[in-house]
Amino acid sequence: MKRCFIIKGNICYSESKSKLKIFENSYVVCEDGISRGVFREIPERYKDFEIYDYTDKLVVPGFVDLHLHAPQYTFRAVGMDLELLDWLNTYTFKEESKYSEEKYAEKAYDIFVEDLKNSETTRACVFATIHKDATKILMDKLEKTKLKTFVGKVNMDRNSPDSLTENTDSSINDTLDILEYSKTFDNVFPILTPRFVPSCSDELLERLGETGEKFSIAVQSHLDENFDEIKWVSELCPWSNSYADVYDKFNLLNDKSIMAHCVYLNDDEISLILKSNSYVAHCPESNANLASGIAPIKKYLDLGMNVGIGTDIAAGSSNSMLKAMGEAIKMSKLRWRLVDNDIAPLELEEIFYMATITGGSFFGKVGSFDSGYEFDAVVIDDEDIKSTMKFEVRDRIERAMYLHDKCKIASKFVSGEKII
Amino acid sequence: MKRCFIIKGNICYSESKSKLKIFENSYVVCEDGISRGVFREIPERYKDFEIYDYTDKLVVPGFVDLHLHAPQYTFRAVGMDLELLDWLNTYTFKEESKYSEEKYAEKAYDIFVEDLKNSETTRACVFATIHKDATKILMDKLEKTKLKTFVGKVNMDRNSPDSLTENTDSSINDTLDILEYSKTFDNVFPILTPRFVPSCSDELLERLGETGEKFSIAVQSHLDENFDEIKWVSELCPWSNSYADVYDKFNLLNDKSIMAHCVYLNDDEISLILKSNSYVAHCPESNANLASGIAPIKKYLDLGMNVGIGTDIAAGSSNSMLKAMGEAIKMSKLRWRLVDNDIAPLELEEIFYMATITGGSFFGKVGSFDSGYEFDAVVIDDEDIKSTMKFEVRDRIERAMYLHDKCKIASKFVSGEKII
Repeated sequence: MKRCFIIKGNICYSESKSKLKIFENSYVVCEDGISRGVFREIPERYKDFEIYDYTDKLVVPGFVDLHLHAPQYTFRAVGMDLELLDWLNTYTFKEESKYSEEKYAEKAYDIFVEDLKNSETTRACVFATIHKDATKILMDKLEKTKLKTFVGKVNMDRNSPDSLTENTDSSINDTLDILEYSKTFDNVFPILTPRFVPSCSDELLERLGETGEKFSIAVQSHLDENFDEIKWVSELCPWSNSYADVYDKFNLLNDKSIMAHCVYLNDDEISLILKSNSYVAHCPESNANLASGIAPIKKYLDLGMNVGIGTDIAAGSSNSMLKAMGEAIKMSKLRWRLVDNDIAPLELEEIFYMATITGGSFFGKVGSFDSGYEFDAVVIDDEDIKSTMKFEVRDRIERAMYLHDKCKIASKFVSGEKII
Repeated sequence: MKRCFIIKGNICYSESKSKLKIFENSYVVCEDGISRGVFREIPERYKDFEIYDYTDKLVVPGFVDLHLHAPQYTFRAVGMDLELLDWLNTYTFKEESKYSEEKYAEKAYDIFVEDLKNSETTRACVFATIHKDATKILMDKLEKTKLKTFVGKVNMDRNSPDSLTENTDSSINDTLDILEYSKTFDNVFPILTPRFVPSCSDELLERLGETGEKFSIAVQSHLDENFDEIKWVSELCPWSNSYADVYDKFNLLNDKSIMAHCVYLNDDEISLILKSNSYVAHCPESNANLASGIAPIKKYLDLGMNVGIGTDIAAGSSNSMLKAMGEAIKMSKLRWRLVDNDIAPLELEEIFYMATITGGSFFGKVGSFDSGYEFDAVVIDDEDIKSTMKFEVRDRIERAMYLHDKCKIASKFVSGEKII
């Protein structure tokens, strides 16, 4: 049974891509895990609900991290001197191989899960490793947090170190095993996770596409992150028109697909993403750290694409979605200045929408305090950002993005459950 | 009398622009405020010195912030949606006008100074406002922290709002008054601070140049930050060959000058900076936030320019030098990818050198633990960055740059004084 309660505070959420709704020191009502909307005064019918009083603090819908790699959390913020393919070979694959040992996975995922629980993220789409058992460990731990997460056992059957190369059959069988295993969870959902085209044979992708269709399972992967990667895909799949075309041909692009990065989508690929209603996970810090580039997000938004935000641990250094949101704005300004000043920088309102409503929509009716939405909320305490000035709520949201490190998460609710 | 003591920890400092010296759990000796070098075992002659035991923590020379605006600290991380000139008019000038009131300055500078004291910065070059009295208040407060700082009363006699426009004579007289006032300080030094060419008449710049020469006073200003600014300067000073040429003509470029930004130096300007041995304060986050661009710092370094790092509060959102260092690396990667891949990204070693040795050299023999340097040290506690992995000291320095928010400053020493 979900709880019924009211939160008092400075409530802020998206009305649209270009507008925030802001209610100073007002009340948002949760009934059986569902938002009943925001009120200036508590309506009579909710008078008996418990009140969490966060007067003067910021109350926002939770942020949705559409792309991050749980096993890479151990080496976040280290080894930032390489581009994607070298970075994978030098750091990532070495670390991910360790998750063949359950003991290691236990220890490492304890740290990852604890930190994610305490972050401003309420929901996330997470890559695990190829290892079935370690993936189950991660799922078990995440289930207990009451965060809502999609967790994917990664599929890799080519161009990977021996320790991370699966046989195609066992890759599929282990995936099916994970689908079965996740049936008992309330908070963790399985998601098909072909790492990216270079590490997945055509046969593997084809069978994953079939699996997805058969069981109606969501999909996450990488697309158009880096020039060398894109060139490699064109060599590996000479029959394809583009990188996105590979996923599309194998029925992996649909309205439950998340494609991370999309820095360099060409026009055909944009059409494929639009037609399929696939999600783009924009990972701004990662794209800078690996010198990948800056995706033209404003253009994608204006075309009506579903673009959310990802921290992309560990090519992104931090699990902070507030930080990722600030990075997205900063990067969009640099792109405007350095690459194409026909594409305007992103506005705070757009970023907020991407991190709440768009990301949330991947999970259902999530990301807003409008009546009928699942009740996710994060209470941000920004009192450590000292100033002589008084700021409006919108300014304080902006400040929280750039100075996320000075903000404390006072409380967090997911689907009506108070988890911190 | 400066104290004599020893710090034990993982000691890291620059050997050169391309190399760090790292001594795990070793001892660095401070005698009368001067470093006597690093030792694996404590030499007999220092056996009686008190030991601060920071085993396993990171011990680095303090970081030098070559450019920030104290009065702007109040509105850091707010109003990031504008370019330089609009940002100045909309946010900055309005706020700086308030410092005509001593009471406001007292309150605002208390916050700025307290936060700077607790940061990883040991020395800084600080812009105040045009106000003589408020500048004295800032100097008094900084003096007490025992941080070493240059503090400049800003000069502005044109193209500014009335509340921030000085009469040229009084601008000079107030500057002389500040020079006199600073004579009693041990830790705060005056620095001439013409805001930038657009807000300083030729006469004001000329008289400041004369003042600088007469009293051997350092200079700080802005140079080549933004396209509109550069164009404006060329209109305001049609007699000049370039923006830098204006400062040069008025004897404001020398080996005690800091020019902030230098995003777009042309070849003539590079020659002027090199010939004069002036310092460049690279402010990467600021240059992204105001969509100014990315300075070609690696090129400047290779030419032998003195390039240090500035946080540029409040166009930079944070006073964290570790953050600014990470931003500098990230921005240099994007510049390599998006603008000119003949100019390599910055290496961690280069950034570390810029933030310690180069910045330090503006203050004297500062920025190293080699014997004979003034003893500045910051002890970084990174134990909150949990991981299953063990990292080398260099990796931990990198991690502290990207995850500065997870690091605590365990202790800080400036010129042999323990200040936190």
